[in-house]
Amino acid sequence: MRRSQRLAVIIRELVERPGRVIPLGYFAERLGAAKSSLSEDLALVREAFASNGLGQVETIPGAAGGVIYRPSLTPARMQEIASKFCQRLADPKRILPGGFLYLTDLISDPFLLAEVAEVFVSRWHQLHPGGFAPDHVVTVETRGIPVAVMTARALGVPLVIIRRQALLTEGPVVTVNYLSGSRRVETMSLPRRALVEEAKVVLVDDFMKAGGTVRGMLELMEEFGAKVLGVAVLVETAEPAEKPIADYLSIARLLWVDDVSRTLAVEPAPWLQQLEAPARESASAIAACEAEHDSVK
Amino acid sequence: MRRSQRLAVIIRELVERPGRVIPLGYFAERLGAAKSSLSEDLALVREAFASNGLGQVETIPGAAGGVIYRPSLTPARMQEIASKFCQRLADPKRILPGGFLYLTDLISDPFLLAEVAEVFVSRWHQLHPGGFAPDHVVTVETRGIPVAVMTARALGVPLVIIRRQALLTEGPVVTVNYLSGSRRVETMSLPRRALVEEAKVVLVDDFMKAGGTVRGMLELMEEFGAKVLGVAVLVETAEPAEKPIADYLSIARLLWVDDVSRTLAVEPAPWLQQLEAPARESASAIAACEAEHDSVK
Repeated sequence: MRRSQRLAVIIRELVERPGRVIPLGYFAERLGAAKSSLSEDLALVREAFASNGLGQVETIPGAAGGVIYRPSLTPARMQEIASKFCQRLADPKRILPGGFLYLTDLISDPFLLAEVAEVFVSRWHQLHPGGFAPDHVVTVETRGIPVAVMTARALGVPLVIIRRQALLTEGPVVTVNYLSGSRRVETMSLPRRALVEEAKVVLVDDFMKAGGTVRGMLELMEEFGAKVLGVAVLVETAEPAEKPIADYLSIARLLWVDDVSRTLAVEPAPWLQQLEAPARESASAIAACEAEHDSVK
Repeated sequence: MRRSQRLAVIIRELVERPGRVIPLGYFAERLGAAKSSLSEDLALVREAFASNGLGQVETIPGAAGGVIYRPSLTPARMQEIASKFCQRLADPKRILPGGFLYLTDLISDPFLLAEVAEVFVSRWHQLHPGGFAPDHVVTVETRGIPVAVMTARALGVPLVIIRRQALLTEGPVVTVNYLSGSRRVETMSLPRRALVEEAKVVLVDDFMKAGGTVRGMLELMEEFGAKVLGVAVLVETAEPAEKPIADYLSIARLLWVDDVSRTLAVEPAPWLQQLEAPARESASAIAACEAEHDSVK
């Protein structure tokens, strides 16, 4: 097999399985390659990925070793993804009666969500240089599921979906009641066998306003003795400023929506704006996405 | 930029965006490469993918042209994925009181689902050699969402999630009532603006027994004037043999579950067993996965 063919196989396998260790023996056998050529191939891939901002390729020595690929976006690329997201979010046609926003298309666009997931995962890896290895991504039905699926894929771990109502078909469950943002009592349930003992988890959802849903998820995780390593949402609201947790990631911050004048304002999340060395293009994209519109359709 | 670097960028971009046309100009600019080198690179990638069963890379000429990658698994690989899935499904520890099966871990494993999605998409492309281009993947909450997300990603189209209850926050909705498998009246709702006019769609769900859910989805699609190009489920049951549609894909067929003796039997879906040239390994895996177990931890 020629080098270009070997590179194609290696890169496709790595990119399709982020966060998972692929044994060197798998590649050696599949490629029919000697260890020395394989080492050269992997060095080429590692360097190509590093110098083009495509992610980190790491070789882990030892019997349980192999190659692992992790998304690792540059600050400029993260800001670019957030700006693009904000531009789509800032469309006043999204405004529904009551000041709600139509988000259904955004929360179910697989490519957009794959990019957003890479932002979350890249950031978590940066914040935990010693290693970031949750056992599960946890979300609650329904609208957070697509972004949670993509985050689970980017981390290389299984997804766990909390249900609003316990299902007969999932065996024994743990249920918590919590107070929603609108001060109603809501329920969350998770099958007993969905999480391993002392699991480390990240929580992912689509939207955080007062944070009632995240609070419910935190309570349920406590019942399972799980450790929450991180929380991420697609969109947060500026008001109320107080959220149930201090540290979380979001992509966009909704400043306000006015359904009478049909205007809204959105900006990339504060942590993204504070990243060093913002690219010039994203700075102007941020400005563009803060623009307000006064006509619809 | 050296060839290995250019190949790394091209392959990663293609694999991350299946089903989407990436303009040649994008690569030319990003790689700083002349058209002639780019053509050579793409020819290398195309050949490497074709000869290693990694998928099809096609160059589309013209102003709106570019490069497109489509998953295209060999029959042996599809059978291997199905066998692996059946082996996991056939674990008698999954049996719950009432003859239900615990599937929660399977329907939310992102890599397993990415592979399953490639099986669906590869098969649809084979069945429609003139081109298979749905506008949306449609599913219904909750358990079908992860596999539908991955199918949407593999096709390069947005996902649409039908709700069991209409949400205030999604604008005007269309609602249908339908009879479930257990003869109860159930409801499905979809926002008016979720589908384009005369949309072409595929329907994806986790499980099909009598097919009540699929029938409800078909009815709702009719209300939207949408054309259903394909239906795919992860698991179908052998009984009842009559389903609401003749043509659909599944990965595994559940032959029976007995919650008294704690035994079950599963096999790869009939269409997968009938594919030409089954690999010897998958034939033996099929046999293994039909084995019955009579003890549970």
